[in-house]
Formats: sequence, C-alpha cells, structure tokens
Amino acid sequence: VTINWRRLLLGRPLRTERAAHERLTILLALPIFASDALSSVAYATEAILLQFADAHLNRSQFTNSLPISVAIIALILMVVISYRQVIYAYPGGGGSYIVAKENLGELAGLTAASSLLVDYVLTVAVSIAEGTAAALAALNQISPWFQHLEEHRVLICCALVLFVMLLNLRGVRESGIAFAVPSYLFIVSIITLIVVGVYRSVFGIPPVEAVAPPSLIPTGGVSATGLLTVFLLLRAFASGCSALTGIEAVSNGVQAFKKPEARNASVTLIILGSLLAVMFIGITYLANHYGIVPGEHLATYGGVNRHEPVVSQVARATFGTSIFYYVIQAATATILLLAANTSFAGFPRLASILAEDGYLPRYFANLGDRLAYNNGIIVLALLAIVFIVIFGGETHALLPLYTVGVFIAFTLSQAGMVSRWIKLGKLFSGSAFVNALGCCTTFLVLIVVVMSKGWVRTPEATLFHIGSVPIQEGAWIAILLMGFQMWICKSIATHYRIVNAQLAEIPIGYDKPVKHTVIVLVPSRIHRGVVHALSYARSISPDAMAVHIMFDRTKEQGLRDAWEVHGNDVPLIILDSPYRSLVGPLMDYLDAADRVRNDDIITVVLPEFVPARWWHHFLHNASGWLLRLLLFYRRDIVITSIRYYLEE
Amino acid sequence: VTINWRRLLLGRPLRTERAAHERLTILLALPIFASDALSSVAYATEAILLQFADAHLNRSQFTNSLPISVAIIALILMVVISYRQVIYAYPGGGGSYIVAKENLGELAGLTAASSLLVDYVLTVAVSIAEGTAAALAALNQISPWFQHLEEHRVLICCALVLFVMLLNLRGVRESGIAFAVPSYLFIVSIITLIVVGVYRSVFGIPPVEAVAPPSLIPTGGVSATGLLTVFLLLRAFASGCSALTGIEAVSNGVQAFKKPEARNASVTLIILGSLLAVMFIGITYLANHYGIVPGEHLATYGGVNRHEPVVSQVARATFGTSIFYYVIQAATATILLLAANTSFAGFPRLASILAEDGYLPRYFANLGDRLAYNNGIIVLALLAIVFIVIFGGETHALLPLYTVGVFIAFTLSQAGMVSRWIKLGKLFSGSAFVNALGCCTTFLVLIVVVMSKGWVRTPEATLFHIGSVPIQEGAWIAILLMGFQMWICKSIATHYRIVNAQLAEIPIGYDKPVKHTVIVLVPSRIHRGVVHALSYARSISPDAMAVHIMFDRTKEQGLRDAWEVHGNDVPLIILDSPYRSLVGPLMDYLDAADRVRNDDIITVVLPEFVPARWWHHFLHNASGWLLRLLLFYRRDIVITSIRYYLEE
Repeated sequence: VTINWRRLLLGRPLRTERAAHERLTILLALPIFASDALSSVAYATEAILLQFADAHLNRSQFTNSLPISVAIIALILMVVISYRQVIYAYPGGGGSYIVAKENLGELAGLTAASSLLVDYVLTVAVSIAEGTAAALAALNQISPWFQHLEEHRVLICCALVLFVMLLNLRGVRESGIAFAVPSYLFIVSIITLIVVGVYRSVFGIPPVEAVAPPSLIPTGGVSATGLLTVFLLLRAFASGCSALTGIEAVSNGVQAFKKPEARNASVTLIILGSLLAVMFIGITYLANHYGIVPGEHLATYGGVNRHEPVVSQVARATFGTSIFYYVIQAATATILLLAANTSFAGFPRLASILAEDGYLPRYFANLGDRLAYNNGIIVLALLAIVFIVIFGGETHALLPLYTVGVFIAFTLSQAGMVSRWIKLGKLFSGSAFVNALGCCTTFLVLIVVVMSKGWVRTPEATLFHIGSVPIQEGAWIAILLMGFQMWICKSIATHYRIVNAQLAEIPIGYDKPVKHTVIVLVPSRIHRGVVHALSYARSISPDAMAVHIMFDRTKEQGLRDAWEVHGNDVPLIILDSPYRSLVGPLMDYLDAADRVRNDDIITVVLPEFVPARWWHHFLHNASGWLLRLLLFYRRDIVITSIRYYLEE
Repeated sequence: VTINWRRLLLGRPLRTERAAHERLTILLALPIFASDALSSVAYATEAILLQFADAHLNRSQFTNSLPISVAIIALILMVVISYRQVIYAYPGGGGSYIVAKENLGELAGLTAASSLLVDYVLTVAVSIAEGTAAALAALNQISPWFQHLEEHRVLICCALVLFVMLLNLRGVRESGIAFAVPSYLFIVSIITLIVVGVYRSVFGIPPVEAVAPPSLIPTGGVSATGLLTVFLLLRAFASGCSALTGIEAVSNGVQAFKKPEARNASVTLIILGSLLAVMFIGITYLANHYGIVPGEHLATYGGVNRHEPVVSQVARATFGTSIFYYVIQAATATILLLAANTSFAGFPRLASILAEDGYLPRYFANLGDRLAYNNGIIVLALLAIVFIVIFGGETHALLPLYTVGVFIAFTLSQAGMVSRWIKLGKLFSGSAFVNALGCCTTFLVLIVVVMSKGWVRTPEATLFHIGSVPIQEGAWIAILLMGFQMWICKSIATHYRIVNAQLAEIPIGYDKPVKHTVIVLVPSRIHRGVVHALSYARSISPDAMAVHIMFDRTKEQGLRDAWEVHGNDVPLIILDSPYRSLVGPLMDYLDAADRVRNDDIITVVLPEFVPARWWHHFLHNASGWLLRLLLFYRRDIVITSIRYYLEE
C-alpha cells in the first residue's frame, strides 16, 4: 500500500543516470528561478509609495518614486552582471556560499549560507501568505461567497505550501512545467499593461476609470505636511530593494540547467534582470502618471482592512474593470504564490551543498525518487508552515526582514569575487571592477536597509505583540535567526569531525574474530519458536546457553521436563526474579558473565513470534520490544530476535 | 530517572513471597469491598422517592417507600446469604464468572463476566462523577468561591480517577489503609444520625429545622393527581435495587483476604449486608418521618439545578445546620468517591482470572511491583475516564444501567449454584433452597428492572442527545456493551487457541542446527564500526559475505581499495541501485540467495553506531531502523545490529 501511494504522489522513480535528462532548458528554468524576483513587481512600487504616504508627503512629491526606481534598476543590473561572473567562475553552483567560503574563509561562507537559508524560509512563508491574501481578495470581487474562506486562511496557506512541496518532490522538471503557464501569463499580461498604458499616456488618452483621489490628503486624514528628507528617500529606496530577492537563486542552482550550464544560467539571469527592470519601471511610471496613492479605495477592493494594491489601480485605470483587468488580478495573485517555488529550487540545493561539506545533516544530500533533494524540500515546507502558523498568516510584516539577508549574501559574494580576482592577479581587470563596484553598492544598501528598517520605531512598523509590548519590524529578527542557523551549522560540523575521527581509528588486531557468548532467553513454555531459536543459537556458537527468568516457582518442574525433551543438551540456567522483573536479573547475570568469561560480546537470542494480524500484537506481551529498549544503551551486547511467524 | 519516578509513585517493589503478607484483615477489607454498597445509602432512598414525586403522588402515599425498602433489604439479605455459599464453594474467587462457567458452561460464564466488567467501569465513572458533584456542592455551602471549580468538573473527575488508580497501583493494603478512615467515618456518622433521629422520633421531639414543604404539591407545580399503580411500585423497587451493586465484589476477591480466606470473606459479606440493611432502612424511616420530598430546597443547596439530597435533608432536620451536619455532608461526598475503589478491587481480579483462562490478554494476569494487577487497574481507569469525558461528567443518567448487569450476574451465579447442588446430589438441602430462591428472586428483579428501565420512554429518562434525538435511559446500552465485551472475550480465546496449536506442534528434525548465510551490509566508507561488524560476522560463520548497495559509482574504487586493507578476505559483493533505494536491491539479492543457497536462515549484520547524545540521532541516517522496519515481515531473515558506541 505504501509503495502505491508513493507512486501516485511522486510518480515513477527515476534512475540516477536520468539526472542529465531532468535538467532544465532556459524556457523551463525561467519560471522557476524568476518567479520570486518578478513577483516583487506586484509590491515593490507600492512599498516605495507607502513610505511617502506614511510620511504625509504632498502628492506632487510622490513623483520621487521614479528616480528611486531607476536607482533600484541600476542596482538590479549591477547585481545581475556581478552574479553572471559568479556563475562563470563557479559553474558547480552554490552561489554566495561557495564564493565566500573559497575566497574569504569558513565564517564568511557560513554567514552567506545562513542568511540565504533563513531568507528562503521567510520567502516561502511570506509569498504563500501574501499570495493567498491576494487570491482571496480577487475571488471576493467575483462573489462575496468567498469571504467564508477568510476564516480558513492559515489552513489554505498550509495546504498550498504542501502542494508546492509535492510538485517539487515530483522533480524539478515537473514543477517547472506546472508553473510555466502562470509565470508566462504574468509576464505577458504585465508587459501588455505597460505597453497599453504607456501608449495611452504618450497620446494623452485619459484613464478609463478614475483612480486618483479627490483630494491630495492621504488616507490618514491628516493634511500633507511631511518633509521629503534624505532619510525618507533612503528608506523608500530600502523598501523598494525587496525587488532584488530571488536573483541569488540562479547562481545557486547552476547545476539544474542543461549543458552548457553556466551559459544557460547566465542567459536566464540576464533575461530575468531585463524583465524585472522593464516591468518595475513601467509600473512605477504608470502609477506616477495616474497619480496613484497606495492604500486608497479601501471598500472597492474585497474585504476587511485591505487596500487596493497599486498594480490593481494601474490595471483599472488602463483597462477599466474589464476581463483583462481580472486576468491581471489572477496572474498577480498566482505569481505571489509561485514566488515560493524559487525558494524550493534554492533551499534544497544550498542545503545539499552544505550537507556535502558537513554543515548540515548528511541526508540533505540524498536524492529522492525523482532526483530531487527530498529532505531539503520537506524541511523547507515544514519550517515555512511553522512561520505561517506562528504569524497566523499575517506575514507581510516579515517582508523587510529578508531584504537584510539577501544583501548580506550579495555583499559577501561580491567581496569573495574581488578577493578571487586579486589572487588571480586580475585586480585591475574590468571584471574585478564590476565586482568591486557591486560589493561597495550592495554593502551601502545593506547599511541603508539595516539603518532604516532595523532600529526605526514607528507605529506602522509593529510586527506583532508579545502581551501588550509591540515588537517592531527590524533587521534584528533576521540577524538573530541567521546567528542561530550559523551556530547550528558549526555544531554539526564539529560533531561530524569528532565522529569521523572516532570511526577512522581502527586499532591493530581489531579485525580478529570476536570471542562471544550466546544466550537464548527462554520463556516458561518451550514452544516451536523456542526450539527454532535454540537451533539458531547452536548454529552460531557450539556452546550456547539458555537462560530462563523465573517469576513463578510452580512452573519450574514443567520447564525442566520440557527441556529434557527439546533442550538438545543446551545447558539451562534458571534465574529467580523475586520482584517479577525480566530485565533486572538478566542484567545481573550478564554482568556476572562479563566478569567470568571475559568475552568480547554477548549475543542474546530472543525467540519472538510475529502475529498474523496487527491487532494481535495487543494480545501478546511486548517484552521483546521492552528488552531491546532497555538493553539499547548496554555495551557489547548483541540482541538477535528470532521470529516465528504465526499463520492466522 | 524512570526508576526513581516509579519508586516515588508506587513505592518499593515487593517480593512475590510477600503476597500472603499483603492480604487483608476484615478491618481493612471492609472499607474496600463495602464502600460501593454502602454508598448506595446516599442515593437509594432518594431513587425510590423520586419515582413517587415524578408520578405526582400525594404526599401521604410517599410512605410506601418504607415497605419497598423492606423488600429491598430482604433481597439484600437473600443475596448475601446466597453469596456466602458461593464463597465457601469457590474460595479461589472469581464469583459469578467461575460459578456460572463451571456449572452452566462457557457462555453463561462469559455473560456473567462481561456484565460485571462493564458494571465495574460504569461504577467508577458514575461514582467519581457523582462524588465530585456532591463534594463541589458541599464546598459551595462553605464558600461561593468554590463555584469556580464547577467549570473544571470533568478535569477534576479525571484527576480523581487517576488518584484512585495510583493508590491501587501501590497495592491493595495501601489503598485499604488510605480509604479506611473516611469509610468508617461514613458508617459511624450515618449510624449516629439514625440513632439520634429514631430516638427523637420515638419521643416525639420536633425536627430542628423544618424540611417538609409548605404544601403537598410536588416541585413540578402540578397538583398531586398521580395514581399509585403496581407498575409504579415495581419501578420504585427497581430504582432502589441500585443499593445491591457492590455486593458481588467480595465473592470476586476472596483471594485478597488473609487466611482463612473463605471465612474472612464471608464474615465481611455479612457485616456489609447488615450495615447496609440498617443504614438503608434507617434513612428511609427518617425521610418518611420528616415528610421529606426529594428535589426540594433547590436554592439552599449550593449551585445551579442541584436539589438537596434526601440524606442532607434528614441530617438537617435531625441536627440543624451544625458541625455534625457538615461532617455527614463531607462523609457522604467522600463515600461516593470511594465507591469507585470497590471496582478497582473487583475489575483487575476478574480480569486476571479471565486472562488466566485466555479470555483477555495474558498481561492482565501479571503482578506489578506492589503485587497488584497493574494492567487491569490502568485499563479500568482509562475506560472510566473515557466514559466521564464522553458524558461530560453528567453520568448520573448511567446509574440505572448497571443495575441490569448486577442482576444478570446475580441470577447466573445463583443458577450455577443450584446446578452445582444438583450435581452434588444435594438438591433438597437448605443450601440449594437458598440459592434457588435467590436465583428466582434476582431473576424476577432483573425482569422488573429491564421492563421498567429498559423500554419506558419518559422525558425525565433522557440520557443524552444525538443531534436532537433524545436517547432514553435504557438497559439496551448496558446490554450492547456487554455483548461487545463477550465478543471480544470469545475472539481473544479463539486467537490464543489457534496460536497455541501452532506453537505446540514441533516437527521432527526441527531441533537440528540451522544452515545459515551471514551477510554484512557495508556502507561506502569502511570505518571502525564496519570492521567490528565484520569480525562478529566471521565469528558466527566462517563463510560470511559482505554486501554494499551502491548509489554512487564514483565511490566504487575507494571502497574496493579500503576493502583490500580491512576486508580480511571476506568476499565483497557490490549491488547497483539505479533508483537509490537501499531496500529494493537488498531484497532482490536476498531472494536470489534464498534460491541458490537453499539455507534455512539468512542473517543480515548491520553495523550501526550509537551517538553519545540523543540529538545526534538527527544528524545520522535512520537507515538501520528503516531496514529493520521494512524487513520485519520478511521471513527467515535475522537482523543483527552490531552497535559501535561514540564517546562524544
């Protein structure tokens, strides 16, 4: 039965040689590796505009989002070019971890790896939760009936995580095929939206539906008195930088591409960067053109406490509430869910590389039935579910957290590349310059993100409450988790090193045959199973002994009589057990035997019968299991269970 | 750590020879075996009067409770005398089960046993729930603060069941000592109440507090128009018969008494019967004398929906709300709780006898650390908790149910005794007459109980609701449970018979030494543990083989090189595993080896290392456990795990 379920869920197992076959073309790789990055189109513009709205800026000052977006796109392109060089330098995959470890040492490598592992988990939790919220809001617009689903949001999130997990367990190809259609639908529909929108704006055609608010006062009801400070600009920039998450995944998963791996990965990366740049700047431009303020149109967009997102407003202004508007809504909700899939491509590969290096349990490197890293996939899904359940599905406050992790990884990998160029004597090459520039820029952004997101305490930044104490959004949570992850990696590495040292040392003479005593534990009744166990014991040692632990003296003579017939001259030792304990007298006897015989090993042979049906187990003593459990930590004992099978 | 907790909770283990020492004197046995029967003094009179009140009888007709009580006492005395003969005839204990089985056959024996087992469980559930309710109501009279406890009633019930369980696990003597004081307090206080009350009534002293209601109209507010029918009298009689539960337990537990067992048990039974008769008739007389109607004084007695019990009214009329009144209240609440203890004496003994006869799992006959039948005690507590939780602590509706079971057991045991006298040729002796009369009477009562409690549908009789369908109180529930219990007993007996037949048959030549093949399963790295396992394999068979399941061909040469050094000339077989499965190729190889070598048994030696700390288990493959699990149902395989212990 187990086998069939497994087949049904995971499909036919694949031979190890099929691995090359299962690799991805650019067409299939793009939806897997791009969905996280592209999904940020759905929220990055909004993140910038929200900073302005929160600061009560005047509407005219909202146009500052355009230069900020341009700066972010410049950053994206720089990161893409830097990572292109990482891919060619390390075609084996591993991205920031390998680059940092090889060039900057173990600590830098683990820092990069830990921040990425934490990020992947947070990405799954956040994108599934956000995608579910967006999907429910979109369904709400179709029929109010779907409001019933709101109550079960956490459950729906968990089910979706498990669904994405299952598809990934079926192998990277299958998940790529499954997610290709919605990803391309999103790309095509957003680009259509931008093309139509820009066309209309160039020819001065007015919006189909009015989305600009009647007054210039933002939602809070306070008049626009905010000042555009440098700090605010940096904060808005940091918020927009969430668009960069997901770029790292490609360099991690080079080995998932068909040959030539490095070239295919690098082409995918460049397509990804270009799409991201076009879509991000397009949406920001249109939002500015329509004068959109985030967080308005509260009532028109679905249910409770939910503002209409900027992309939805842009689509409505461009197409009206037409069928095309709904297509964009559906595609946006889907891409948010699919962003999780990028992490499912990244986490298990990074975990397998860490496992090979001994920083994570070895089984993370095992290939499953479908040549996927099953253990990594399952652990990622479970951790994400833990986050979703803890935050009750309200994970959007976690969003800024993982910007920190991404930029730590960016900075370390670029720094590693610079160090590599120095070692190769190419410090003054163009490549080194690109990486050095990338390193400096991403480090600066990291400082901006940490400064603006880490310690600023504003009421809007409240992440969750512990009792009545508000816990603010802050880089410290991500850093805490990272530190914990690093400590785990270090401990595991230490453990493996110690174990290896112990296992490697093989003393001289250790391969001589052991001397051993064989003891058959017999019950008060000599049945077929006991006779069988006795034959086995005699076959492994000519001087086997039998031991009976006696609770009830009245049965002694019966046992001795039966032994005369079936005992086959094996000596029978009867031990009294005044307290009716099986283990106590046996232990005492084993201690004594150890002292007297001075053997290497004592083999205890247990005759056990296996009932024909599972519920029959309840009708028999579990003393075999109990003995094995209690003798487990006793050294130099081998417990051999000789099973006799009942037929009915 | 386990051992220490066990010591702390259960006390020092007792030697098997101490069993005689642990037996009970009459003084200690009385509180254990009498508390169930005596506790019925707290509710039997009330059960009769409630029938009258429910039928809207005129107050003057309530005096009919006196002749009914006299009839019940006659019944009690007859049952006591009959059981006295059972005890002398079967001093080994077992009561109705043994008598019915020996004289009327297996089916009658199992019927008696099953009805008693069900009864014991119901008794624990009902008496703990009722005792808790009474105790909470009594505490409420002291301070309204205790009302907070009402919310946690089910939890308190469960805790009390576990407490009584624990005391019984500490041995029959300890539970007897613990419960002696409250039991004797109840006896002394009720008898004092009766003596003082009768004295006052004889000399015409008026009640200290008025308890008779101002009008003759019962609580319902309907005028007294009811008719005293024969059926009503029988119904009232049947309700009062709940006083007889618990008498059976003495005949079950003869072996719990000190020598001479039969005499001590019979004396205890007679004392029990006499006390019950005196107390029951006394309370009924006083209730009549004071003109008490049950279910009045709603507000004066504690909390919500709780009527003042008859005993409380009698005590108040006799002593006023004095300290002595509170003592009686406390003693009554306690005896209701202690009634459960009688079942804890009865159930495990009956279960152990059934287990010896193969009708229940054998471990019910195992003696625990303190010479108690631990498994029976624990199962009884768990089943009672299940009932309490299902009924949410509102178990009083279950009360009439177990009257049915008790009278089935009574009837069958008396019938068995009559059959025995016939076999012994003593049909016309006085003893046979007593048993025959007992048999007929209890059978008649059984019919009355079933007729009046089984199929009558009145709104008051609603036991619980399934959806909106009211489920009426009815013998059918008890009979359903009994039938289920009988089916279980029969199935278990059949299973044991089949198993015994299979185990007993020992084919000729079965005790010849087995031919066996030894296979060491080696991992890709030859470490200390593998070398150790290899030495062991060579010691149990000169032609041991080694098998490696290869996932990764790149490691083949390394393995072969290491084998040259450490393999000790044991042949190494490398099996390809194209689907990276450990079990599949191993199974195929074992099948092939089975065919080729035609051996009796294949021993698979698994080298496993045991980590120093429990959490290290997470860092290593669980393939050893997995293999054992998957090979468990494969025949003629012995799996021998050779453990190598890590030091840190």
